[in-house]
Order: sequence, then C-alpha cells, then structure tokens
Amino acid sequence: MTYPLDGITVLDLTHVLAGPYCANQLADLGARIIKVERPGLGDDTRHFPPFVDGESAYFATLNRGKQSIALDLRAAPDRAIFDRLLAHADVLIENNRPGVMERLGYGWEALHARHPRLIYGAVSGFGHSGPDSLKPAYDMVVQARGGVMSITGERDRDPVRVGASIGDIVAGMFLTQGVLAALLARAQTGVGQKVDVAMLDSQLAILEHAVALTAVTGRAPGPNGARHPTITPFETYRAEDGLFVLAAGNDALFARACMALGLGPLDQDPRFASNAARCENVKTLKGLIEAVTLERPRAHWIAALEAAGVPTGAIQNVAEVMADPQIRARNMVVTIEKGPGGRPLPCSGNPIKMSDLPDPSVLPAAPKLDGDRQAVLDWLEEAEAAVAAPVPRRSRG
Amino acid sequence: MTYPLDGITVLDLTHVLAGPYCANQLADLGARIIKVERPGLGDDTRHFPPFVDGESAYFATLNRGKQSIALDLRAAPDRAIFDRLLAHADVLIENNRPGVMERLGYGWEALHARHPRLIYGAVSGFGHSGPDSLKPAYDMVVQARGGVMSITGERDRDPVRVGASIGDIVAGMFLTQGVLAALLARAQTGVGQKVDVAMLDSQLAILEHAVALTAVTGRAPGPNGARHPTITPFETYRAEDGLFVLAAGNDALFARACMALGLGPLDQDPRFASNAARCENVKTLKGLIEAVTLERPRAHWIAALEAAGVPTGAIQNVAEVMADPQIRARNMVVTIEKGPGGRPLPCSGNPIKMSDLPDPSVLPAAPKLDGDRQAVLDWLEEAEAAVAAPVPRRSRG
Repeated sequence: MTYPLDGITVLDLTHVLAGPYCANQLADLGARIIKVERPGLGDDTRHFPPFVDGESAYFATLNRGKQSIALDLRAAPDRAIFDRLLAHADVLIENNRPGVMERLGYGWEALHARHPRLIYGAVSGFGHSGPDSLKPAYDMVVQARGGVMSITGERDRDPVRVGASIGDIVAGMFLTQGVLAALLARAQTGVGQKVDVAMLDSQLAILEHAVALTAVTGRAPGPNGARHPTITPFETYRAEDGLFVLAAGNDALFARACMALGLGPLDQDPRFASNAARCENVKTLKGLIEAVTLERPRAHWIAALEAAGVPTGAIQNVAEVMADPQIRARNMVVTIEKGPGGRPLPCSGNPIKMSDLPDPSVLPAAPKLDGDRQAVLDWLEEAEAAVAAPVPRRSRG
Repeated sequence: MTYPLDGITVLDLTHVLAGPYCANQLADLGARIIKVERPGLGDDTRHFPPFVDGESAYFATLNRGKQSIALDLRAAPDRAIFDRLLAHADVLIENNRPGVMERLGYGWEALHARHPRLIYGAVSGFGHSGPDSLKPAYDMVVQARGGVMSITGERDRDPVRVGASIGDIVAGMFLTQGVLAALLARAQTGVGQKVDVAMLDSQLAILEHAVALTAVTGRAPGPNGARHPTITPFETYRAEDGLFVLAAGNDALFARACMALGLGPLDQDPRFASNAARCENVKTLKGLIEAVTLERPRAHWIAALEAAGVPTGAIQNVAEVMADPQIRARNMVVTIEKGPGGRPLPCSGNPIKMSDLPDPSVLPAAPKLDGDRQAVLDWLEEAEAAVAAPVPRRSRG
C-alpha cells in the first residue's frame, strides 16, 4: 500500500470548514498537513460546539492527523519560520478574504516568484475576481444566493437550507480536485500554479438539472418537497414507525410495487395505469399507498419492496446511518483514537476506497494549538540538511 | 496554458449522472473522454427532459466535449475494438451494479492482469463490498438512507429532498478525486489501481457537523428550516419582494444589523442583548425585523446590511443565479456552442479556476450516439502505430 501524496507537504492556513475539509482529504491521501494557526485562539472551530470536557469535537473531526504550529505572520521571528516552511512545502492552502495574504507579503504573485514549485490553493466566498470578491460569506449566504435553497423545501412554503453545509463542503472538494490537478501538472512542468475556488461558483456547479431546465424553458424550478417532479410514485411514504422512500421509475416497477405492498392490481386502474395518470392522481395514490403502509413498520415494507426489486430505503437519521450495517461494512465510521477529553470519537471514514490506499479504522488525534511546534521545526531542519547534502527523497517521517 | 490531464484518455462507460459528471470534470482538466455507449439507445439521459427539438438538454450538459462510440460488449467484433481501446486508455470509469463488468469479462481483476497501468474507477449505489452491495439505488434513496434528508426541511414537518442531486453529484466528485489520486500514484509506481466509490458512503462523508453532534450527544439532530440551530439572527427574512438571508454571527454584527435596518438600539433590549437571549426570543425578533423589512425590496436591505459589513444575500432562483453579475464575472455561465437543436445552450462553467488552466466560455457539443466511431478508430490506429514505431509521447489530437 502506498499513499498517492506520500512525501507531499501542505501548509494549511485555513480555518472553520471548507479549507480544513480539503486538508482532511489531502491527509487521507497521504499528505503531511502542517496547520499554521494564529497564536492564542487558533482555528475558530476550536471554540465551536459540541464539546467533550471543554474540547471541540467539531474541531477534532475536521483536523484529525494534522500537525499544528502557531505563527504570528506579522511578527519577524515567526515570519522567518514560515519562510523556511514555504521553501519545503509543496502546497499552501488558505481561506482568507482576497487581499489578506497580499497584505502579509504572502500573495500568490510574491510566493510564485520566490517558490515556483509551490501550489497555492485558495477557497473564499466569492473568489478572487469579480465585483463581490471582497464581500463576507457564510455557508448559508451562498446556499441562498447560489440557488440550491430555491429548489429545496416544500412546494408553496418557504425554501429551506440544506442541512449539510454544502456551501462549504462542496467548495472544499473542488479545491481538493484543483490541488490534485495542479500536482499532476507540476509533475509535467515543474511549476506550481494558483487554484482559486469560490463557494458561490461551486453551488452553481452542482445544480446540473435545474440549470438545464432554466436554460431551456427560461423558468426557474421551485422546491418539490420529497417528491420527484415528474415521476410517480417516487417520494416518501409513511410506515407505522417512520418514513421510507419508494422509487418506482416506470410501469413495470409500479406493478411490482403494487404486488409487494399488497395493493392488488392498482396498475390496471385507469387512474394509475401510466406515469402521466399517476402524476395527475398523485394525492389519491399516496392515500391508497399509506392506508396500507401505515399498518406495518418500514422494515417490513422495505424488505418486501427489495424482494420485488423496487428501489427503496428508509429515511434514516444520522445515528441510524452511523449504525447502518452497509456503512459499517464499508469502514465508513472510523474512530479518532484520542478525541476530545482523551476519549475515542467516532467520525466519518474516507469514501474514496482505492485498491492500493490504506483505509484505517483508527485515526490519529487532532493537534493541540501549537502542539507540534518542535516536531515541525525538527522536520524542517532535516529537510534543510537533506537539501544541503542531497540524499534520496526525504521520507514522510 | 497546459491541461493537467493532457494526453490522458478516459474510457467512459457510465450513464445518467454520477459517472458522466465525473467525466465532465476530467474533461475540464484536459482528458480525452471516449464515451462507450450501448448501441441503439445509448445513455439513458439522451431520453431525459428537458428537450430542444427532440434532443435532451440534460444529456447535452452532462456530456459536452466527449466522443461517443457505440459498442455491444457482448458481441465479438465490438469486444475486439474495446480490447484495443483498453490497451491505449489510462482510465476506465463505470457505474454498473457490482458484478456486471465481471460477467462481461472486464472486471477489475481481469483488466488489471492484462493492463496493469489502467486505472479503474467505479461509482455505484452502495459500493463493491458489504451486504447491500447489489441493491439498486437512486439519488433519492441514498439521500434518504444517508441522513441528509433527516436534517433538511422544516422543524416538525416531514424531511425534504435536497433539490440538487447531491446523492449522485458528490459521489461523482469523490470519484474524480480518486482518479486524480490514482494518476498521481501511477506516476510513482507505474501501476494503476481500482477506485470504488459508493453513493451512500459519500452522503455520510459530507455530514461533518451532524456526525460530530451525534457522536458526542448520542442524539441525531433534526431539520431546522432555514435557521441556524444555535445562532440568532441567522436565517431568512421576508422583504417586500422576496426572501433574503441575514447572518449576524455575534453581538457586534447584531448591533450593526439593527442600525442598518433602522431598528433602533434593539441590541440594548434585554430580550435581545445576547445570543442566548435572542435564541430564546427568536420569534419575537423575527416579527420585529420583518415588520421593517417587509416595507422595502430586498435589494435595499442587502445594500444596507452590506454597507454595515453584515453577511447577507438574496435567496435567488436558478435564473437569478445565472444572471448574477458575480457569477458572470467568474465565467460560471458558459455556452455549449451547438447544443440540442443546433442552438447554443447555457450551462454552468468550471468552478476550479487555475492560473495555468484554460477556462473557455464556449464548450464543444455533446456527441451524437456513435458519432465519433471513425474518429476514435483513427486515433486508435495512430496510437497503435506509435507503439509499433515509438515516437515522442502521443498528442491529444
């Protein structure tokens, strides 16, 4: 087993969510992450709930396995350390507002001139160009402005936020892709480049169907609750103990679903004989289906529908997902061995399963603020010595 | 400008959404995508609305710039062509149910033995391992089972689906990352590997905060509408002409918001003097805020709040997003020059802006089914000739 990013060092100046999520992904692929934090407070999320013994589990999850060094990038002695780190790093990532790095003397132009191999990854609310480049953004601001809220929620009610912070997460994922692509390019050219990802841009990039619909019809779609807009039955239904999804995408699947639910030959009824008819009579059909499904627990109906080959599944809460046997079998719930309070903390695993990539079930802890200062300085001295007296490629040690 | 994936050839056996989205991303980075479709019908999405002159705009968006060859992988002559393509491809991606490729004789083990440099990327509903590996899945099934629906929607109402197909899209993005990582690894080892991404796994991987909360408290969070669960005011408010977000994350921002909205010194009122108090009196506060904001259009309030440095933004529908000056300035709405019906079709641009990556505003068309058969065969002959009589690395031409 080898890590694709073995030997790659990332200076991680990011905080909160999008940037640290990107760094987590690079760590899972084998990069060494040196988290450069401001002295005193460190990353904001060190002070975000939920806490265990006063330590943030949110921070712990988003920063497992990173090293931390606290540097004041306005103070000469710390700048000297940062300059030495830059000379031995492959990637720098940051999520400040545009202009902040320039004012510190660490903008892309300056860094590229001094360290031509360095890859510079930035993630910000609106990107490093355009009229709104300098405006502040939160996840919810880009979810709103970026369109996803306008198609999420119940029809004829106000839009809702996507419960996951996809404004941040998706942007962090695009930054990861950009950094990986820049590493591939550098292998050819020997030169690093800047990657500039905006949270707002990233939202539009995931709206494929809504964009195509708007482009063709000139009308923007609205929210549709938990129902597919043009297929019936393709939504959530209530069982005795909770909701489940029944997704019968065509007439044959609908016939099979009717059998599995014991609804009789409802597929012969002219009101439900075609998808168009079913869409017209969607409320009547829902009533008929739930009159049956409310009588028994969802596990019963899911088993029956699965046996009939109809796509189905429960709406699970996050505790249920974390206990789901399929999720467990895929090593998708892993443990930070020494989480906050020194106790084990479950978190989500790496969804990228690769035949030659380790997939550990136990992850190293998140760092204390400045907790790896000496280790980082020792590594730096080794790296500097290796350049002075070249030996084979430095190890990840 | 150079493409990071210049010279990389991807055999794309995927259909519908997750796989084609991944291939789009690889194309944006410069890979040649040869879409291998079943003869007759091709990719299902060729028959998905919206249509222009009978051609699918959905298919066009998800397959711009790819080449298409129709091959029946059960028929000997087409298998012979596919075998020749495999010998010159760098990456194969597929999104069949596990086992389908094995039955065709093109499973990972067999391909890896014959083509050790080939990278094999698979995206499926539940992945290639675990008890539910063979079950069918749709986007909505994994949104339900994967937990995101349980935290999306209004409190005390049924959960809703995320309007964007993040069950597919996020899985496609993880596959892209895996393929890029495998290319980096191959540059070191000379050997390809298998990437196995499950849509269900991918859902858990984006629920960071909800997972941390569940892990620490033992209780799964529920939906929260458009409101932040623990910060006030941090939600949507109604203006004269629509909804906007006001996100005042601390006391200072709240004081500034009160000034900007002309609410007077509401931040001195004991009911609203701290975040805890504001959370307690959230409904009263919303009433007071909307009594003011309903009087004028949201552009007025957004300008006032922005001037005060308070994070804010409209809830935009997809048509508004596509016309947003910031989105336009970032080249995030591009045009497929010959879309369906031969007419230009707007679609979303590449959110990964790189200093050395072309960012075209006009994209090539999606292929007709089997429309590039001859071009693909010609390229293949050239590639075979180049191996027979080695010349410098083959071009993308």
